[in-house]
Amino acid sequence: MFSQTLFAKQQNRSGVFMRVKGFSAAAVEAGIRYENRLDLGLIYSDRPAVTAGVFTTNRVQAAPVLLDKKRLQKGQAQAILVNSGNANACTGEEGMEFARLTADMAARELAIEPELVQVASTGVIGEPLKRAPFERAMPGLVGALSRDGFEDLARAMMTTDTRPKLVHRTIALDGVLGSILGVAKGAGMIMPNMATMLCFVLTDARIVFPVLRDIVAKGVEESFNRITVDGDTSTNDTVLVMANGAAGNDWLEEDNPGAVATFRETMEEVFSELATMIVADGEGATRLVTIRVEGAREREAALDAARTIANSPLVKTAFFGQDPNWGRIMAALGRSGCFFHPDRVSISFDDVMMVKNGLGLGPEAERNAARVMRQKEFTVYVQLNDGVECGEILTCDLSDEYIAINADYRS
Amino acid sequence: MFSQTLFAKQQNRSGVFMRVKGFSAAAVEAGIRYENRLDLGLIYSDRPAVTAGVFTTNRVQAAPVLLDKKRLQKGQAQAILVNSGNANACTGEEGMEFARLTADMAARELAIEPELVQVASTGVIGEPLKRAPFERAMPGLVGALSRDGFEDLARAMMTTDTRPKLVHRTIALDGVLGSILGVAKGAGMIMPNMATMLCFVLTDARIVFPVLRDIVAKGVEESFNRITVDGDTSTNDTVLVMANGAAGNDWLEEDNPGAVATFRETMEEVFSELATMIVADGEGATRLVTIRVEGAREREAALDAARTIANSPLVKTAFFGQDPNWGRIMAALGRSGCFFHPDRVSISFDDVMMVKNGLGLGPEAERNAARVMRQKEFTVYVQLNDGVECGEILTCDLSDEYIAINADYRS
Repeated sequence: MFSQTLFAKQQNRSGVFMRVKGFSAAAVEAGIRYENRLDLGLIYSDRPAVTAGVFTTNRVQAAPVLLDKKRLQKGQAQAILVNSGNANACTGEEGMEFARLTADMAARELAIEPELVQVASTGVIGEPLKRAPFERAMPGLVGALSRDGFEDLARAMMTTDTRPKLVHRTIALDGVLGSILGVAKGAGMIMPNMATMLCFVLTDARIVFPVLRDIVAKGVEESFNRITVDGDTSTNDTVLVMANGAAGNDWLEEDNPGAVATFRETMEEVFSELATMIVADGEGATRLVTIRVEGAREREAALDAARTIANSPLVKTAFFGQDPNWGRIMAALGRSGCFFHPDRVSISFDDVMMVKNGLGLGPEAERNAARVMRQKEFTVYVQLNDGVECGEILTCDLSDEYIAINADYRS
Repeated sequence: MFSQTLFAKQQNRSGVFMRVKGFSAAAVEAGIRYENRLDLGLIYSDRPAVTAGVFTTNRVQAAPVLLDKKRLQKGQAQAILVNSGNANACTGEEGMEFARLTADMAARELAIEPELVQVASTGVIGEPLKRAPFERAMPGLVGALSRDGFEDLARAMMTTDTRPKLVHRTIALDGVLGSILGVAKGAGMIMPNMATMLCFVLTDARIVFPVLRDIVAKGVEESFNRITVDGDTSTNDTVLVMANGAAGNDWLEEDNPGAVATFRETMEEVFSELATMIVADGEGATRLVTIRVEGAREREAALDAARTIANSPLVKTAFFGQDPNWGRIMAALGRSGCFFHPDRVSISFDDVMMVKNGLGLGPEAERNAARVMRQKEFTVYVQLNDGVECGEILTCDLSDEYIAINADYRS
């Protein structure tokens, strides 16, 4: 499912291909929390775009999430205003007011309907925002909008991320060339205080709302909901997908299933690649590990099992220590709630089998597995031999660097 | 619920009071995995004792757990043989054979029925055990049995524990003086590879099996099932309680409710104190934190919420960093599945309120809370103001030391 992208490949590409017809972007240093760093970004479509979103399932939802959900009922948007430094979460009625206010500022400057502006925030929870930095920055931000502004935008979203995350694909739609461009931020996944997961995907494809909504909902389920850094979810997690139709293709709609399938596939690639980038840039991560549980009776149980293993601090610390400690994997599996027979389980690290019928295969297998663990990326296969369902979760290791980042960053 | 014992008080007491009538204990250096450390221990009652046990709920259960459960159906035991260094888990039919074999060795040397010997193991998973160290050590082990052998025994159980854990209480039972003595090991809670939770409690009280079983089951639920170090459970977790009746009190049984209540209370104290010691000695722990969720609609939901907060790596790392980062607590609460209204929540660290009606109370409150966090022990109160139920979980912080211990120890 996940493109096993090398860490090296996560490096940003040259911005020149990072364009989508009808879309522009910009970022500025507004001084929201820190000076001298891009912290306010804007995405703008030259026409209203069909827009679908997926938001955090956390019961505590930040003001921008509440506002966006309400505005997206119409399935349309034309701009996204995004800031880092402050999450505008747990800020009460004032926070809601502030989210509306900043959207209004952008709408006025862009001369569009306020209702067409979506907002997204990431940063510290529970601190009131200041109006002045937004007001001062807005004219310059709108003035800086450019077809090549997406890398700056991706940088303005970063918190503990170490690099901007952008993915671009072109796609043939009934003889017309379209584009999909995605930008994301993550880091601690999905960490509530400074490292919310935000993802914006822009396409010039022409697509009807119900089809886009379905593609986005299912795509998020198979990508962003299959990754974990620390098991925490955020008050601000947001995925927004805008389709402005500037490519001029035939409408992607139900009676055009072939083109819809191609579009869906490409969109899923963009989601998966961004999700992979987020884990690879997990706080302190040195290893990118896919946990694949196979041979389960139920698909949901397989996913639960993979997720329990992927979130176990003991398993993740063993990945960091390059210790092929399969006992920890068995124990995490055993408490996951997934049904299985312990004496049927086999465990492999890539193509090195370490456990068969619930029993370890000895020191040589462990030595070979330890060799696999020296790679930056590998897969742990857990075969339950009890059914045909499988589930896959992408995770990273837990290093001393994670502790350093999260114990210290607010001070 | 938990006795907020100072770290300093966790130091071992003088062994002289650590006696229970009719019980003796011993430990030797058998060389099971490492040389020159106590790794094999024995508890012996001079008569068969009414015995109740609670075992791991993990689907993967070590051989000793499977053997003990079977043998405990009769509710009787006379000895417990415990080793560290090897968990005898994921060892298949051979492992079962080995568990029976070592119980037989002890039974022969003690001249008691093999069925009356319980076994417990902790250590590495998935490695076969060697017979010789047990055979060589057994005569010396039995020969060393002594009324004052419990501190040695507690040391023989240790893995990544930094200190032995013993608790002793005397109790008046209808004019007769009885004793309860508990020993435990924990460390990574409840960590499958080297730091299983094992707890043995011995009493000379005379008590019928159904009453003892009920006291143990409920007591474990309120103590060991209310603590967490890293959220992992083990293949070997075991609580065994033996009551040999040597105190000669009137039978503790259903038609003697007053004495049963006193006994239950004391037993719960012993459990809670041992549980507290385990968390305080959690791997790398520098802080002991009680998470108390109040004002929930359902008790189970309150417990789930407390447990989710207590297991959040972000929350635990903030405890280590002494950062009163209440946003992380709100976010963990929000994904716990517990129903609540975000705008009714208040959060306090001991008596310092930081959040009221879902809103932060500002920098001064945070500074005061940071002061609370400098203490070795404190309580986080999360008031939902939505009902009358509450739940409490005891946890520790997540430090760089945890990573060091768990990334390195097998190498």
